[in-house]
Amino acid sequence: MKLAIDAMGGDNAPKEIVLGAMKAIQAFPDLHIILVGNETDILAHLTNEDRITIVHTDEVILATDEPVRAVRRKKDSSMVLAAKLVADGEADGCISAGNTGALMAAGLFVVGRIEGIERPALSPTLPTIGGEGFLLLDVGANVDAKAEHLLQNAIMGSIYCEKVRGISNPRVGLLNIGTEEKKGNELAKQAFELIKEANLNFVGNVEARDLLDGVADVVVTDGFTGNMVLKTIEGTALSVFKMLKTTLYSSLKTKIAAAVLKPDLMELKTKMDYSEYGGAGLFGLKAPVIKAHGSSDANALYNAVRQAREMVEKEVSETIRSAVEKTTVS
Amino acid sequence: MKLAIDAMGGDNAPKEIVLGAMKAIQAFPDLHIILVGNETDILAHLTNEDRITIVHTDEVILATDEPVRAVRRKKDSSMVLAAKLVADGEADGCISAGNTGALMAAGLFVVGRIEGIERPALSPTLPTIGGEGFLLLDVGANVDAKAEHLLQNAIMGSIYCEKVRGISNPRVGLLNIGTEEKKGNELAKQAFELIKEANLNFVGNVEARDLLDGVADVVVTDGFTGNMVLKTIEGTALSVFKMLKTTLYSSLKTKIAAAVLKPDLMELKTKMDYSEYGGAGLFGLKAPVIKAHGSSDANALYNAVRQAREMVEKEVSETIRSAVEKTTVS
Repeated sequence: MKLAIDAMGGDNAPKEIVLGAMKAIQAFPDLHIILVGNETDILAHLTNEDRITIVHTDEVILATDEPVRAVRRKKDSSMVLAAKLVADGEADGCISAGNTGALMAAGLFVVGRIEGIERPALSPTLPTIGGEGFLLLDVGANVDAKAEHLLQNAIMGSIYCEKVRGISNPRVGLLNIGTEEKKGNELAKQAFELIKEANLNFVGNVEARDLLDGVADVVVTDGFTGNMVLKTIEGTALSVFKMLKTTLYSSLKTKIAAAVLKPDLMELKTKMDYSEYGGAGLFGLKAPVIKAHGSSDANALYNAVRQAREMVEKEVSETIRSAVEKTTVS
Repeated sequence: MKLAIDAMGGDNAPKEIVLGAMKAIQAFPDLHIILVGNETDILAHLTNEDRITIVHTDEVILATDEPVRAVRRKKDSSMVLAAKLVADGEADGCISAGNTGALMAAGLFVVGRIEGIERPALSPTLPTIGGEGFLLLDVGANVDAKAEHLLQNAIMGSIYCEKVRGISNPRVGLLNIGTEEKKGNELAKQAFELIKEANLNFVGNVEARDLLDGVADVVVTDGFTGNMVLKTIEGTALSVFKMLKTTLYSSLKTKIAAAVLKPDLMELKTKMDYSEYGGAGLFGLKAPVIKAHGSSDANALYNAVRQAREMVEKEVSETIRSAVEKTTVS
């Protein structure tokens, strides 16, 4: 199995990307990695060249670049070249921690959609209190979604959870403003009817306030709402921790107590860190494309590689293709 | 000034409602309160009848009632009668901690819209790290909003913050998935253009992850997205506190540290409690209608009364009417 990695994408590139790739090579004996980026910079961190190939390029897509334009113009960028390796059959999937919008565009224009999938979905797995996590899709690939897209999100999410996360008969929930059947905006009401009729373990509407309790394995929504919910979870958790820190350092008394609690509180913060579940999959493409978090360290990158590897091995794209074919025919 | 209160709405009715009303009477010498509900139950808690009148009724709208149907059929319910006192000019505004959907329907059908306002907006003030709070609207009154509605939300929110919260030239932000001007779904893009042209202190797009940092005083969105963000903030904060509690009680060592920190942590939790800012205003109606939180205690109810009183005194409805008139004419 071959995976292409954009070695120049993300806040900690190329160092942590290269370290993560080497960790993955150690863990998976069947894996071959192609690192795309500046060869000199990559070699500065590469201490093991076993099953690792470098494709050199000097061009890079920046976090500040306008996504679609960047993908169209920077044809020799590390991200576009990684996607091209997939399109040309030189790699089975690709990973980048770079510009999210650009990776979505590269996925769409370079790797290409599965026939029958109207819009790909960006799909991270988010933490729950119990630790099992839930898949949220879409979080921004398709901000003006139609009900049919939400049905396809439900199908793709269900297949991913079953194949990669090993959840049999995953519970699929529709993100809505109430749990009753007739709740929501027009989009949510129409999507409810479609998903209800599909051959899925549909648990109905789920509310945003219950997400971290693990109310469903797959939570389906449009890209605008999903992005809001994702960023609200991040922002709120961060704010509470910030306030907690202020509280803990407010007096000598609290500082002493804080010192005692520190290891336990760090563990709690790790629990909220969703890079443990891998990156966000871009579902609906001909091959796995994984967006690792922009602040990925070697471990987060390793988890994204593991995830891409699982998606290839369990033939997620192929399964989605045949499931969608069936839905379209019937 | 006269305010009507639904004494039977909310989890702690009528006791906490009655206690909150008495607290408000003590605080505001110009205030007269009409408590609507079961007279016997109200009298069981009423120790001061000064400037408090009771309007007796046995009918109650339940939290589980279908909102619109309940308002249409339960014409003698405490909530509908309180709204009717406003419509009839017997009260200057009303407050309920009961069924949110039903109060929105009662506001719309019984109190009535300000001419020119197409859709009222439900508008809570949410906590920020710095303690100043921000107004979010809409959080569920109008789930299929158009750009024009978002512009009206911006106008109404700005007036409320200026008049009631005393913020001069309030910063108005449009909730979006990125801060750049061309970001978002169709609705957000159209609303951006409209709000930009209005005579407001528009700070542009704001992201969900920055809300608790106090990035704007007024945050404008559609009812579906706003409801999601509101419930995600609630759910995430609650989940983090739940996990924190588990951590603090995990061993004898952490239990001792937790005991030291308890008062400070309680203070932190209070900071996240938005009932301190009053209830959620239903803006765009002919008179102030306030939705107090369902779990309101006497203090939360008192804050909602204070808020309704300010809205009456500062003529918020009248100011909104004349501002909208100007926008429509130009």
